[in-house]
Amino acid sequence: MTSTDFLDGIGSQLDWQRDLYKDFHREPELGLAEHTTSARITSELTAMGLEVEHISATGLVAVLDNGDGPTVLARADIDALPVTEDTGLDYASTVNGVMHACGHDMHITALLGAVRLLHENRDAWSGTYIALFQPSEEDAAGARAMRDDGLTAKIPTPDIAYAQHVMPMPTGTVNTKAGPVLSAGDSVKITVFGRGAHGSMPHLSVDPVVLAATIVLRLQTIVSRETDPGEFAVVTVGASNSGSKSNIIPDRAELLLNLRTYDMDVRDRIIASIERIVEGECRAAGSPKEPTFEYYDQFPLTDNDEDANDTVTKAFEDYFDEGVVLPATPATASEDFSEIPDAFGIPYAYWMIGSTDAQKYEQAAEAGTVNTDIPANHSPQFAPVIDPTLEIATKAQVIAALSQLGT
Amino acid sequence: MTSTDFLDGIGSQLDWQRDLYKDFHREPELGLAEHTTSARITSELTAMGLEVEHISATGLVAVLDNGDGPTVLARADIDALPVTEDTGLDYASTVNGVMHACGHDMHITALLGAVRLLHENRDAWSGTYIALFQPSEEDAAGARAMRDDGLTAKIPTPDIAYAQHVMPMPTGTVNTKAGPVLSAGDSVKITVFGRGAHGSMPHLSVDPVVLAATIVLRLQTIVSRETDPGEFAVVTVGASNSGSKSNIIPDRAELLLNLRTYDMDVRDRIIASIERIVEGECRAAGSPKEPTFEYYDQFPLTDNDEDANDTVTKAFEDYFDEGVVLPATPATASEDFSEIPDAFGIPYAYWMIGSTDAQKYEQAAEAGTVNTDIPANHSPQFAPVIDPTLEIATKAQVIAALSQLGT
Amino acid sequence: MTSTDFLDGIGSQLDWQRDLYKDFHREPELGLAEHTTSARITSELTAMGLEVEHISATGLVAVLDNGDGPTVLARADIDALPVTEDTGLDYASTVNGVMHACGHDMHITALLGAVRLLHENRDAWSGTYIALFQPSEEDAAGARAMRDDGLTAKIPTPDIAYAQHVMPMPTGTVNTKAGPVLSAGDSVKITVFGRGAHGSMPHLSVDPVVLAATIVLRLQTIVSRETDPGEFAVVTVGASNSGSKSNIIPDRAELLLNLRTYDMDVRDRIIASIERIVEGECRAAGSPKEPTFEYYDQFPLTDNDEDANDTVTKAFEDYFDEGVVLPATPATASEDFSEIPDAFGIPYAYWMIGSTDAQKYEQAAEAGTVNTDIPANHSPQFAPVIDPTLEIATKAQVIAALSQLGT
Amino acid sequence: MTSTDFLDGIGSQLDWQRDLYKDFHREPELGLAEHTTSARITSELTAMGLEVEHISATGLVAVLDNGDGPTVLARADIDALPVTEDTGLDYASTVNGVMHACGHDMHITALLGAVRLLHENRDAWSGTYIALFQPSEEDAAGARAMRDDGLTAKIPTPDIAYAQHVMPMPTGTVNTKAGPVLSAGDSVKITVFGRGAHGSMPHLSVDPVVLAATIVLRLQTIVSRETDPGEFAVVTVGASNSGSKSNIIPDRAELLLNLRTYDMDVRDRIIASIERIVEGECRAAGSPKEPTFEYYDQFPLTDNDEDANDTVTKAFEDYFDEGVVLPATPATASEDFSEIPDAFGIPYAYWMIGSTDAQKYEQAAEAGTVNTDIPANHSPQFAPVIDPTLEIATKAQVIAALSQLGT
Repeated sequence: MTSTDFLDGIGSQLDWQRDLYKDFHREPELGLAEHTTSARITSELTAMGLEVEHISATGLVAVLDNGDGPTVLARADIDALPVTEDTGLDYASTVNGVMHACGHDMHITALLGAVRLLHENRDAWSGTYIALFQPSEEDAAGARAMRDDGLTAKIPTPDIAYAQHVMPMPTGTVNTKAGPVLSAGDSVKITVFGRGAHGSMPHLSVDPVVLAATIVLRLQTIVSRETDPGEFAVVTVGASNSGSKSNIIPDRAELLLNLRTYDMDVRDRIIASIERIVEGECRAAGSPKEPTFEYYDQFPLTDNDEDANDTVTKAFEDYFDEGVVLPATPATASEDFSEIPDAFGIPYAYWMIGSTDAQKYEQAAEAGTVNTDIPANHSPQFAPVIDPTLEIATKAQVIAALSQLGT
Repeated sequence: MTSTDFLDGIGSQLDWQRDLYKDFHREPELGLAEHTTSARITSELTAMGLEVEHISATGLVAVLDNGDGPTVLARADIDALPVTEDTGLDYASTVNGVMHACGHDMHITALLGAVRLLHENRDAWSGTYIALFQPSEEDAAGARAMRDDGLTAKIPTPDIAYAQHVMPMPTGTVNTKAGPVLSAGDSVKITVFGRGAHGSMPHLSVDPVVLAATIVLRLQTIVSRETDPGEFAVVTVGASNSGSKSNIIPDRAELLLNLRTYDMDVRDRIIASIERIVEGECRAAGSPKEPTFEYYDQFPLTDNDEDANDTVTKAFEDYFDEGVVLPATPATASEDFSEIPDAFGIPYAYWMIGSTDAQKYEQAAEAGTVNTDIPANHSPQFAPVIDPTLEIATKAQVIAALSQLGT
Repeated sequence: MTSTDFLDGIGSQLDWQRDLYKDFHREPELGLAEHTTSARITSELTAMGLEVEHISATGLVAVLDNGDGPTVLARADIDALPVTEDTGLDYASTVNGVMHACGHDMHITALLGAVRLLHENRDAWSGTYIALFQPSEEDAAGARAMRDDGLTAKIPTPDIAYAQHVMPMPTGTVNTKAGPVLSAGDSVKITVFGRGAHGSMPHLSVDPVVLAATIVLRLQTIVSRETDPGEFAVVTVGASNSGSKSNIIPDRAELLLNLRTYDMDVRDRIIASIERIVEGECRAAGSPKEPTFEYYDQFPLTDNDEDANDTVTKAFEDYFDEGVVLPATPATASEDFSEIPDAFGIPYAYWMIGSTDAQKYEQAAEAGTVNTDIPANHSPQFAPVIDPTLEIATKAQVIAALSQLGT
Repeated sequence: MTSTDFLDGIGSQLDWQRDLYKDFHREPELGLAEHTTSARITSELTAMGLEVEHISATGLVAVLDNGDGPTVLARADIDALPVTEDTGLDYASTVNGVMHACGHDMHITALLGAVRLLHENRDAWSGTYIALFQPSEEDAAGARAMRDDGLTAKIPTPDIAYAQHVMPMPTGTVNTKAGPVLSAGDSVKITVFGRGAHGSMPHLSVDPVVLAATIVLRLQTIVSRETDPGEFAVVTVGASNSGSKSNIIPDRAELLLNLRTYDMDVRDRIIASIERIVEGECRAAGSPKEPTFEYYDQFPLTDNDEDANDTVTKAFEDYFDEGVVLPATPATASEDFSEIPDAFGIPYAYWMIGSTDAQKYEQAAEAGTVNTDIPANHSPQFAPVIDPTLEIATKAQVIAALSQLGT
């Protein structure tokens, strides 16, 4: 028997997986508060006869020790988002204002399915398989939380790490790419200071509303003038807030920025430019106090190792039918997954699972409206098609594992 | 006996007035909710043997009918502000977050004192005196509320109207000026629309944060380029708010503007310019939806009738010592008082009562720090000196009345 | 005989003055190059039997020593403008591109007429009269040139100084005002530096075109936010120039600013703000080199001495019919006249002579189009009506002199 | 003998080519005025015994008819630039202010060398070779001029077209790439209108200096907010000019923009955005007159046919040593070459010839200063190293020809 033959047996466990998926979907939990989710994952693993190690408040790991061979780590993220679901699904979120709008419920369910398949077919492989369930991906806090709680000391050092993500591409596809696939992401809260005054006495003020406006406009030049035209870079001011009454000039303004880059040098240069611009504009305004910069939600670049990606891509192509494995386009989104392999200093591969109804996708593609008609991740309408998304995602985790551990 | 001689008797009622003032100061109430204040005024007037007519929920009027002669209306505003008092006074506000930070308590007390003096000395004058206590001056709602409740039908038509206001000028002074003394004030809430998107995908958005910034900067040109350099005009963007997260481009921005002018033509031109600028910038941005403009807190120009002001100024000069009556500088603040005489189509005069410790004022003036060291109206530290401010303000109302009614 | 009776004799010299005026108008000369003009003034004065002292290349002075009494200085400016005349007058400029578009030809002719009247009627007055003809008023260089050439040492120290200017007000009027009548004016050339690059490679540049744009917008806030709303202030960027080809990012930008103020403190604050803003914006841009500021064409405030103005106004009112002497409105223009009295430390008065057809003015005033329909100073259509403007201007100089020197 | 053996004989003609190159370099001529250059090319071709057809004033073609087979067109551009040479070379430009700063002299000389080699070795190939010398590439006028003068009717229709360009890459290299290699380039002159006024009277103006500033800043958002972050796009305002005196508010402003794109849809969208922004800002300003847009210097995208590029790349790799043929990076520059094959509807390939001293290049690359230390095209210091650049460029043209015509 060849090493992937046992995947044909997935049919017998798919109903269990579908129910699991719907359960997770009904009970979404925000980052670092995934207590119910973590408990359910634990009970499922325990039911399989596996031991669970809790790392950080809501993160956990199951180690399948199966003789000599390499060690593979597969990671699923488990947190949901502060989004009010608007899908009309019968298994929609029951938690007001919280939703699995990024498909992490699918990631959990696929990894649990892969663990079960690998656990029940230990003769088909040899080595160590580590299933890692990570909290709080959305605000880049979960991988760090597990590292801070001693991850590298608590589990065997893997040789390679894998993760996958559902995306608004046609269901039935697996999308891979060597090198950068997800951008680095950084957020920064900037506070600039003016001097408050009655709205009728501007000459007694240093107006922070005007100051913020000059900063917002000047920041545009980082992308338009300072960045190599072919280089990927985004500088978004997602929020600009100052004042609350028409006739009171406030004494400060607050800006929330989000940056996306594919190159750490570009990122560092952009951050330097932001600080230079804000400081220059504060000086131009006669601001009475230095601006402050608070960096948060800092996501690393997800930069697939060439060999790791090639091996897994070839394994996918060998197993799946033609047309399933496609080249991925780099996405502007960000992930904290890479912090886990980086903690061990090991290579990794990250791929994407199509989850949109293929026919709808094709129609939107023909109409040129993929970006507007297909609800993307974080949308209140984001709703992965369960079949065959769940089966493909489960098999992908197993195949990736077997590309290292297969006998 | 000359008509002002009875003012010498004010000494016997000043203790009553000082207690009244402190009581009002301790129990400030916000506009249109001045129930306790209104009840106390009523009880004081009733105690004098006067009848009170309630006009609007918290406004009221007492009419002193005293034979043939002209009819004079004197108005005091009675509302307080959402300010947390920070004066350290032993009669400081006992209501959390509310304070008589604009001195209306002084206006009430002075008018009650004037009513008592006039009522007790009816032989010194002839005609009709109307004491009007108006709610909710701060948001330009109170004069309108009394008009809407039938003010003009419920009281005799006056020949002239008076009002006064305490200001951060030296106590012991009365400050008058013909023509415009307080600016017209207008607030407008502007909402502009973009298209929301994930922060990493600006090309799918129409960015309202950038749009708001261009509007804020372009609005500066209304004063700097479009207004005659010698003309008074203020266009303040007191609040500019858009978005709440760094990585979500919001779908709208909200601006709160406050305008101050001394000329209705200038005001109308400025409003037209604001709308033109906002519409032009929305077009430049490719905004998907027309901006909206909601006007509120609209204060009229306070524009003293020349004769009315001359008469009252001369009467002040005749009665007070030299150095008490000074020329007032037009203030950038606004008032809704003039809506009352305008409802009757009668002339009016509005003057200012100095309420700052004279020595402190002089020191600040010498240091050139009047604007920064002397707590002005609306400041948590605003604290009129009771003596002689209260006496001067009471006498000023009586003298103004006698300038019309004196026998 | 009262001291002004001899003014009735002006009729006999008016034809001479009209011809003189037309001659000066036909041969305008730019500032510091008024050689023909200066020679003609000299020959006219010499023809009267007066001695002329040349001070600076083209400035000159005639001193009428007439016994005991005060010393009065009267000044006329003599330069023309780089404007192409478009009046259609039969005595229009014969010099291509140069025109007496500011009426200095009228000032010369009136002062020559006044000198002749005073010279021929020495028994009507006593003291010293100094007629000063000043070059190059338009670029604020002429008064300085005469001071630099020893003006204060070369002539007796006057007790008072006078000057007048034709303005687009109705002919037949003289307009006076105590205190500030003309603004202070300052020009500054600002050069900011970027780094040039090919237009397709913005990331190799520091873009001075964008930098200049941010400066122009930020400068608007000096008037809109930093200046007391009632205070006169103008900050104009009259020229902004950078680059010459679409596909070359230039390495610098040049801005020419013009400021107008009525208060030297306001002026100094504005200049400080300009430098602060430009330096802050250069810092925000990452400019590789400090900006430079070159100040030029600096005109002082023309601030009439209260007594000097009152005396001359009263003398005008005594002599002229009712309706001739009017209160002047402060103008936004500037003058360097006051540098001359300031050099001596003496008071001065400066008044304005209406020169527009009264009927046309009235029609424009009724239509509210004075500013657009009446060609103002510096316009190619500026054309003072000769009668009675010339007679009024001549008499005004004599009456002002007699207010000090009349016997 | 294999078809490329005769290239070994290039040595005997290299001295002639080096002298030719230096002669062309000494006598640069601007676009559409390349009279001496065109005459010299003609005399060289005639000396070889070839007939020359002049197409447009300074363009020309030589057709080598050599029996059955495909038809290949090779194009060299021949114009120079308005740059003052600063290379210190002994064969530097002798024409003041004009320089072959873009290496077209090398292109001419290489093509003449290739023609001579092919002409003298007609037995090594079969078919038709068309050498086309095109004027005025720099302002995108030359290809159009030849088309307008009947190019397609005057020469045989080619099957394929080739062109090459020297670039600041290491000499000794040939750089190829399928698909887009040079951006589309568009220039546009925008004139926006205000209303002029004296600098002291901004309220009578509509200020075009401020209007231009708002446009320059708003244009930044086309790249920063409206363009997909991974998409190449440049919007440069190379010149912004308005006004000439500090105290005159001008009545218009002129902007010169340059655009670079790799996708015609992106280009069209950018042009639409520019017009939308300018019109919106003019509306916001209250501009009295519609803005005007004049498009010029419009360069097409240079988009190599995949097959054409593959064939020529393979031929280069077969002939040259390893390390010579490298993948090219798309450049931000633009070319009008593709208008020639597009006129015939035929595929084309365009490649780049390294011309920088290899050692200097390596040092700069290591220091990360290639962009700043290596004088690029259009720089006054641009100086291709003659050897082996000239030999490689000549051989490249021959090899490309033989890839189609070789026997």
